[in-house]
Amino acid sequence: MILNKIYVDNIIKTALLEDINYCDVTTDHLIPAEQDGTARFVSKADGIVCGTEIAVRVFQILDENVSFEILKKDGEEVKKGDVILTLKGKTAVLLKGERTALNLIQHMSGISTAANKYAKIVEGTNASIADTRKTLPGLRPLQKYAVMTGGAKNHRYNLSDAAMLKDNHIDAAGGITNAITKLRSKIGHMTKIEVETRNLDELQEALNAKADIIMLDNMSPELMKKAVEITNGRAILEASGGITDETLRAVAESGVDIISVGALTHSVKAFDISMYIDK
Amino acid sequence: MILNKIYVDNIIKTALLEDINYCDVTTDHLIPAEQDGTARFVSKADGIVCGTEIAVRVFQILDENVSFEILKKDGEEVKKGDVILTLKGKTAVLLKGERTALNLIQHMSGISTAANKYAKIVEGTNASIADTRKTLPGLRPLQKYAVMTGGAKNHRYNLSDAAMLKDNHIDAAGGITNAITKLRSKIGHMTKIEVETRNLDELQEALNAKADIIMLDNMSPELMKKAVEITNGRAILEASGGITDETLRAVAESGVDIISVGALTHSVKAFDISMYIDK
Amino acid sequence: MILNKIYVDNIIKTALLEDINYCDVTTDHLIPAEQDGTARFVSKADGIVCGTEIAVRVFQILDENVSFEILKKDGEEVKKGDVILTLKGKTAVLLKGERTALNLIQHMSGISTAANKYAKIVEGTNASIADTRKTLPGLRPLQKYAVMTGGAKNHRYNLSDAAMLKDNHIDAAGGITNAITKLRSKIGHMTKIEVETRNLDELQEALNAKADIIMLDNMSPELMKKAVEITNGRAILEASGGITDETLRAVAESGVDIISVGALTHSVKAFDISMYIDK
Amino acid sequence: MILNKIYVDNIIKTALLEDINYCDVTTDHLIPAEQDGTARFVSKADGIVCGTEIAVRVFQILDENVSFEILKKDGEEVKKGDVILTLKGKTAVLLKGERTALNLIQHMSGISTAANKYAKIVEGTNASIADTRKTLPGLRPLQKYAVMTGGAKNHRYNLSDAAMLKDNHIDAAGGITNAITKLRSKIGHMTKIEVETRNLDELQEALNAKADIIMLDNMSPELMKKAVEITNGRAILEASGGITDETLRAVAESGVDIISVGALTHSVKAFDISMYIDK
Amino acid sequence: MILNKIYVDNIIKTALLEDINYCDVTTDHLIPAEQDGTARFVSKADGIVCGTEIAVRVFQILDENVSFEILKKDGEEVKKGDVILTLKGKTAVLLKGERTALNLIQHMSGISTAANKYAKIVEGTNASIADTRKTLPGLRPLQKYAVMTGGAKNHRYNLSDAAMLKDNHIDAAGGITNAITKLRSKIGHMTKIEVETRNLDELQEALNAKADIIMLDNMSPELMKKAVEITNGRAILEASGGITDETLRAVAESGVDIISVGALTHSVKAFDISMYIDK
Amino acid sequence: MILNKIYVDNIIKTALLEDINYCDVTTDHLIPAEQDGTARFVSKADGIVCGTEIAVRVFQILDENVSFEILKKDGEEVKKGDVILTLKGKTAVLLKGERTALNLIQHMSGISTAANKYAKIVEGTNASIADTRKTLPGLRPLQKYAVMTGGAKNHRYNLSDAAMLKDNHIDAAGGITNAITKLRSKIGHMTKIEVETRNLDELQEALNAKADIIMLDNMSPELMKKAVEITNGRAILEASGGITDETLRAVAESGVDIISVGALTHSVKAFDISMYIDK
Repeated sequence: MILNKIYVDNIIKTALLEDINYCDVTTDHLIPAEQDGTARFVSKADGIVCGTEIAVRVFQILDENVSFEILKKDGEEVKKGDVILTLKGKTAVLLKGERTALNLIQHMSGISTAANKYAKIVEGTNASIADTRKTLPGLRPLQKYAVMTGGAKNHRYNLSDAAMLKDNHIDAAGGITNAITKLRSKIGHMTKIEVETRNLDELQEALNAKADIIMLDNMSPELMKKAVEITNGRAILEASGGITDETLRAVAESGVDIISVGALTHSVKAFDISMYIDK
Repeated sequence: MILNKIYVDNIIKTALLEDINYCDVTTDHLIPAEQDGTARFVSKADGIVCGTEIAVRVFQILDENVSFEILKKDGEEVKKGDVILTLKGKTAVLLKGERTALNLIQHMSGISTAANKYAKIVEGTNASIADTRKTLPGLRPLQKYAVMTGGAKNHRYNLSDAAMLKDNHIDAAGGITNAITKLRSKIGHMTKIEVETRNLDELQEALNAKADIIMLDNMSPELMKKAVEITNGRAILEASGGITDETLRAVAESGVDIISVGALTHSVKAFDISMYIDK
Repeated sequence: MILNKIYVDNIIKTALLEDINYCDVTTDHLIPAEQDGTARFVSKADGIVCGTEIAVRVFQILDENVSFEILKKDGEEVKKGDVILTLKGKTAVLLKGERTALNLIQHMSGISTAANKYAKIVEGTNASIADTRKTLPGLRPLQKYAVMTGGAKNHRYNLSDAAMLKDNHIDAAGGITNAITKLRSKIGHMTKIEVETRNLDELQEALNAKADIIMLDNMSPELMKKAVEITNGRAILEASGGITDETLRAVAESGVDIISVGALTHSVKAFDISMYIDK
Repeated sequence: MILNKIYVDNIIKTALLEDINYCDVTTDHLIPAEQDGTARFVSKADGIVCGTEIAVRVFQILDENVSFEILKKDGEEVKKGDVILTLKGKTAVLLKGERTALNLIQHMSGISTAANKYAKIVEGTNASIADTRKTLPGLRPLQKYAVMTGGAKNHRYNLSDAAMLKDNHIDAAGGITNAITKLRSKIGHMTKIEVETRNLDELQEALNAKADIIMLDNMSPELMKKAVEITNGRAILEASGGITDETLRAVAESGVDIISVGALTHSVKAFDISMYIDK
Repeated sequence: MILNKIYVDNIIKTALLEDINYCDVTTDHLIPAEQDGTARFVSKADGIVCGTEIAVRVFQILDENVSFEILKKDGEEVKKGDVILTLKGKTAVLLKGERTALNLIQHMSGISTAANKYAKIVEGTNASIADTRKTLPGLRPLQKYAVMTGGAKNHRYNLSDAAMLKDNHIDAAGGITNAITKLRSKIGHMTKIEVETRNLDELQEALNAKADIIMLDNMSPELMKKAVEITNGRAILEASGGITDETLRAVAESGVDIISVGALTHSVKAFDISMYIDK
Repeated sequence: MILNKIYVDNIIKTALLEDINYCDVTTDHLIPAEQDGTARFVSKADGIVCGTEIAVRVFQILDENVSFEILKKDGEEVKKGDVILTLKGKTAVLLKGERTALNLIQHMSGISTAANKYAKIVEGTNASIADTRKTLPGLRPLQKYAVMTGGAKNHRYNLSDAAMLKDNHIDAAGGITNAITKLRSKIGHMTKIEVETRNLDELQEALNAKADIIMLDNMSPELMKKAVEITNGRAILEASGGITDETLRAVAESGVDIISVGALTHSVKAFDISMYIDK
């Protein structure tokens, strides 16, 4: 599993504790504990699946004897009707884990499918799609992983692993140049510095101060094009803010390197997957 | 605070630990620790705000000396441009908490705004909108609360507090009547029983067996109308499955009591709110 | 296992961390790590056993290679001298887990035995025995499960899953009728409303306001009888307060539906079980 | 507070998370959030109170603005009708914390009252009452503290801080002498060694091997008397097993130093305390 | 495993969550998930190894299918070049766990090697080496265990399991005699009392008051010798404070029973061990 | 506080739970709960202090009414005898927190003092000192912070935020060039790539493949000098492996940019600080 297994187990346990105060009053009273069953996860839409191993792990955490087969791996394309995975175990366990497993795989596949859609829109240009820190509390690891699985890129993970200069930082330090200089003297050699800019003057100053990445904040595609020309490879350019499905291709064609899209993780549409227990 | 404060603090701490491995490399190196600042949360859209107390709590958990004023309480309508709340504290604290607070309030306001939209569509009919267990792991308490704040109703919280008979349960027990009878003899007097039905025969059997709630699964508004007539107040009727913005009003006008909408919590569109630090 | 396995593992780990700061100074220095042993859990009294799977899980959490046989399942009657379960594993593991496993199974069997005793006293009447929220911190899931295992019923699980109107709620809302009306407009369709009443006037008002359950608080069996007649099936009636072993049968014969007994969980007498390591 | 505050907060939070999934559906819909109230904890029986600071802390964890006065401190005698403590805060907070606070203080006062009763029975003899490791999972700290508050003594806290030789340990080491000798060479100088003995021969061997404490397991008061004579102050003698209210005084008069009573913590009778919210 | 397995798993999970936010960007992108590998832990120095089972457990927590062989058990002497243990599993798993496993085994072996060195210096005298409470947060169990593994003794585990009278305690109680008398009347029979003394007068008072252990704080070896003579076996004597490698033997020859060394756990030099993945 | 406050509180609570099972048997029985006191933390050596806010927080977590003054801030030079901070609060609280606070501040000041010593040795050269991932489990945040406080730099935080190619990665990808190319296509734009090299051929390949950082593993200062010349500013060069106090300056003078020192965090010598309670 690529995702940190400790994290995966923790988030699944959190979900199962939310969903079961002490027992499943329906299942525990009606389904014989020894009854065996098999189940299928079936795609109800077209997209990129993500979260298969996590979905399986939900059932294994409830009962280590659940066996499974994954037919569509994370990152693979699925069509409506495709069987994604199958499970074999106690019927009661399958029923208890169903909702938690679906909630996870639907959310993750929703992200990977959207990431893939955006990545395809910019195909053939210089640009990559990236996520942001606009993630849901407790879900950042799996959201970042789903973005990656869909074929987009991960931006910085958090406030500790890369620097991002916003106007408050710049003002406090007395300008872009001072801010970058001061920061360089403090941070480690593995840490990159990105600067938010709102016009070409700020871009120029950031370039002179040797920012690693320069964010072009809410600029028009035309302005971005000029920024790309001025920059001429001296920094990575990231477009951000107000980009929609409609404008995305135009932004990508401006020549920027990165287009970050908060909606990838903050406004996820669940990908429709159903679980069927075979009779 | 209506939400369990222990839960609120836990989810905020989870988010802050995700976002800060050890320090904020940008803020901690550039913003003087003693610099004071004020900030405003401003709505960038029209809707129902939710999560104001949680947003404030993010900053107070980072520094108990942050003071605040909430101008728009949870459940109030906001217009684009409205100031929702203001904060006063160390600039470094405001910057460190910004993303986490926004992620929470945007998600919750997205839910309450959608819940409110659906509730308005069914206004004047007999129907209420309800949520489901299709929530994100770790976020069920705040998602359920946001649904309630938006003016919709909460379905059962989890597998422990109400019974929901699906076909696997019914098959294992030997039919709807047997399943309900057996369950009644086991569960407590505070626990309701809901039965999923797919046609009028099943509805009739569930009525005879005195189910408290009967789910009409993926039925057309016409069929639901018939179900309402047959039921004639003997059970609560819940419409579920395949309901869209377009069909919602028709479903509501069929006379059902409850329309449950998974998308309220599984496919949330973040509500746009920005934080501005005053200069 | 009926109980949520995540909860079970958590409570066992909590107990083992309490009982072992870092090592077992006696066992780790004296028992050879490779020494194998077998053990038996033997009942020292007559009653209903509960917690067998949890007891076994204690040892498996210490060492996944411990094997076992459960001879008396949860809910079964045991007599003094009956072997409840047997274990096979490293002697050191058996010794380290002994106290924690016994503490759990003795507490749970104490509850199920008491629940069964009360259930038998009311047998043949209309009444069921129910537990309360008077549980010990961290132990509610296993206490509720033990009550159910003994043949009694579970009351509401907690403050979130059912409404219970006490006089403070009623006063704040301006009377029983107002309180119920207001609450109905807010809560979901799966949530029942219970009202505490102290006399027949309050009962009458609660009936008129269509409370789902009406608690008869500290009433005499005679008064309860009248309440049953007045109610005539229009609500579930719960007797509560000041009921002792001696008065229980009389209360049950008054015709009430539910008799809730706090002592089931707040004043538990441990059921005597010993563990013997075979030589 | 004598009890470790970190532990206290953790156990309270555990209890509140059990009791409130997300909100209190009754209180949050009916009690105005800004309504102030005062409450009293009143004893309904005679005994020794314990857990006053923990009870108060429940409310302060829900809302740091709750103020209080403790009129009867931990360890003080209370009579039926005595006010133990008073609280001032939001009515909603008082109602939400009531059950959790009562569950804690009733359990702890039940233990301290029982400990006190036993301590009084042996007054005037050489014997002290001690607890055991027969505690409830997660509650050992507060149970041990309540025993101490009631005037009895704490036995070893857990398997790490003192050695207790049972027959399995003795057999594995080749006899009492060998076991003690081997253990002395391994354990630290702060760690005492206790040996379980079932007859005077074993007692003699334990004395010769210089055990710090010798447990007289299930011996009659007469046999214990002989053991006391033989020992003549060379070791601490602990009586254990099968001691009842009736036999306790006789055991104490045998001259033993310690009488350990598992029931103090494994079979607790809740001490009756009520909370009244003033109107 | 001697160390509490629950603790071991917790500390490993803590370490792995620190080291992997969500994935290992290098390994997960470059090492094929199905690639198998074997690895060896090789000693790069001479000493006493400790932490072998914990090191192995790191990999098993990442993937339960990792198999292993431990060639040098905890407490065994290793020479530079010795293979300590071998592992077999997925290469990606071996790479992800490497740093965490090495950090643990190097720290623990550093402690056991130092403990062994000190124990050897005092060999042939009456004295044993003991650790202190000067441990690193969260690591006390494994540090105490490593001390024991190296052949030194464990002092009290924490503030709850033994009493240590410092001058503040003595002053508050009105002198050594009063302090010991008061304490004896409160604490359990398994709890020892140690008194810190700075001169022979205090020693004499502590002896008269029957302290179990007397700490000779920062005394010269000559003064300690006198203390030993005066004490004449009536209490355990512990030397503490300002003892260096150079003075250790002289202190031991003074006749004291225990020499406590904070540096064993507060100033640990990692023991050099490397992991090699076979090609 | 620069360190994430959530982390700080968690690690302090972990330490206090280790150190106090339920009470402090000495302090709680001898020090009157209401006795006030003041205390001073005094340096017993010369160095750079770190951890002052954490030390204070220990006492505030035990009792929020403890007040304090920090006289020497994190990063300041202290001389033997300097008062670092003063505290005012209940004597019992000061005594209970003493050991935990000292353990933290001594460890952190030990790291910052060592980091400062190394930083001074390389002063005037091009080189900076950096830490590694050789940290103690659970302590990485505070160890990284202490390194920074002492004037050295932080290397990558963990496996997620930067890529480091070791020979296993390179082999699996088919050489340095392939590995870097493949990785670049997968990782985000904020993530740097470092390559371990053992000779000038590998250095040359890494340079051609445009590695961001190149580690010179166990090379002699002479070889490093050549590496610096060849590189000529095209990549950051990091010296690592086998560097001692004696060779450090020579390594720095070779012209490398970064010298990483595992001992900074894996072999910490506690910095001597004492706490005195004023009489």
